Amino acid sequence: MIAARPRVAFAMAPEVRQRIFPDARMARFEEIADVLGSLSEFESDAARRMLAETDVLVTGWGAPFVDAAVLDAAPRLKAVLHSAGTIRPFLSDDVLERGIRVSTAAAANAVPVAEYTAAMIVLANKKVLPIAARYRALREEFDAEAAFPGMGNYGKRIGIVGASKIGRKVIELLRAYELDVVVYDPFLSQDDAAELGVGVVGLDELLSTSDVVSVHAPSLPATRNLIDARGIGLMRVGSTLLNTARGEIIDQDALTARVLAGELFAILDVTTPWVLATDHPLYAHEHVMLTPHVAGSLGVELGRLADVVHDELERLIDGRALAHEVEADRLSITA
Amino acid sequence: MIAARPRVAFAMAPEVRQRIFPDARMARFEEIADVLGSLSEFESDAARRMLAETDVLVTGWGAPFVDAAVLDAAPRLKAVLHSAGTIRPFLSDDVLERGIRVSTAAAANAVPVAEYTAAMIVLANKKVLPIAARYRALREEFDAEAAFPGMGNYGKRIGIVGASKIGRKVIELLRAYELDVVVYDPFLSQDDAAELGVGVVGLDELLSTSDVVSVHAPSLPATRNLIDARGIGLMRVGSTLLNTARGEIIDQDALTARVLAGELFAILDVTTPWVLATDHPLYAHEHVMLTPHVAGSLGVELGRLADVVHDELERLIDGRALAHEVEADRLSITA
Repeated sequence: MIAARPRVAFAMAPEVRQRIFPDARMARFEEIADVLGSLSEFESDAARRMLAETDVLVTGWGAPFVDAAVLDAAPRLKAVLHSAGTIRPFLSDDVLERGIRVSTAAAANAVPVAEYTAAMIVLANKKVLPIAARYRALREEFDAEAAFPGMGNYGKRIGIVGASKIGRKVIELLRAYELDVVVYDPFLSQDDAAELGVGVVGLDELLSTSDVVSVHAPSLPATRNLIDARGIGLMRVGSTLLNTARGEIIDQDALTARVLAGELFAILDVTTPWVLATDHPLYAHEHVMLTPHVAGSLGVELGRLADVVHDELERLIDGRALAHEVEADRLSITA
Repeated sequence: MIAARPRVAFAMAPEVRQRIFPDARMARFEEIADVLGSLSEFESDAARRMLAETDVLVTGWGAPFVDAAVLDAAPRLKAVLHSAGTIRPFLSDDVLERGIRVSTAAAANAVPVAEYTAAMIVLANKKVLPIAARYRALREEFDAEAAFPGMGNYGKRIGIVGASKIGRKVIELLRAYELDVVVYDPFLSQDDAAELGVGVVGLDELLSTSDVVSVHAPSLPATRNLIDARGIGLMRVGSTLLNTARGEIIDQDALTARVLAGELFAILDVTTPWVLATDHPLYAHEHVMLTPHVAGSLGVELGRLADVVHDELERLIDGRALAHEVEADRLSITA
């Protein structure tokens, strides 16, 4: 059981605290909890004194790592509420092993990525971005259908690589569209697939039959180069690779070669390296839209993360089930 | 009552017939009807002979006008199935007045426009297109949140101008998003608004409070310059005007001036004139995405129009209600 009015400490980079939990939002937390303060490290005496008092730790981007020694210093700790998606860099396995409850804002953080993805899938099928680039260059009407045969959104196949939180949210958003959505995920059970209402295919079949391939696999050693040069080679002429996950998951050189050959299109929010060299040919190619890692929560979307953490804290106080609890047995396949 | 196997004539521009009803799709019509042929005019003796036999006329873009004289030549005509959106340029009031049933593919034609719009609304709130343009120009990381304050999709207000078929479909697609959608439409009843689940506001309030204003009004004399210079002046700094309807509905010069001042963003699939002069400043501005009239049905989306007409013909034959019947009393406020 948690105190009716728990003591809450925040642990994240100071600028992250200011961006996600500015004063107006902090005031909402102070209505239901005693806010002890904000930590950017767990080593100082002041930090140790705060940890000793903490019932609930709110973590976020740039948080110091919570290991056994930190837990030893926080004997009252009942729950960690993480205000971002990826928890592995911030929490050791000890947290769950000691029975401390963990909640993640991964679902909330998935929303903007999935929204970006669904929007880009619609534009990719319609070839809107290359058409706009060509219109800007030509400044006269041209036959878009002749330039981009088979353009349009009707019955096209969308291949979702990874039934992650983001992948599932994309599938959910695409339900309103007349598209054929298939998914590849070695960890997806038949029951889950049936519930999602999508076809499950092998990766090769997904790559060779999809009009848009969208990558939503976690960044793990096992997913590095998951879509390798052979896989890129399977993609249909005229199809689009959409990557909002991690650049390392695809063979970028193989993709670049097929884009330059005019065969593939690409919409990339992530690349390898994080920012491409200034002379990289993908920057200026009509078939490519590069965005600088903006699909995730930014701007007003940070408010959603704060709201999700606030709602979880209310559930904790009321003794209700957490909406986004992390289960120990899922941790090994999530990022 | 219609014959169990009706005689069907097609009337539209020959290239339109070939694009929307290519042989493979025509074969599906021949399974359930006698296809008499295709007309691009109603004056020749051959055309008159075909009209004399026609039970159902399938019209489309570029169809010759159906007036009283054409109807006199088609005494068996029971229904006109229109394979595009706008019917007024193709059918005189006599058609409905004589009790001939009319169906339109406007709902199907609305789908791609609404899909384009919903995708662009998400990107507009997130400022994805200007960010991509800047990234392409700079080729280095930059602080997108600082460059575009308040970016993101969470709680933003979307103002839909016109609860047309397209406007309603946009509202439907946006239900999956955490956005505040309001609508302005002088013909929208309170019951309809409640059913749509959106707030109804006046045009000035819509313009002055929305983060994205999306135009879905029909092109009628009454909507010309509906968003005039004063209206453009009401729009919030940082907001986006999205127009997939008709260029004449907005004051383009007023919009251009505020875009060039850095105050507004624009995503325009339609302009005045249809193609802007090559030196028009909107072509190259970071805040602007121009597309050359591609939001409507193109490419594979034409197949949806054919499928809708085919389904309506099946309903006619089976004696079921048409799914997209045009009612006489709505004709004056639809385009």
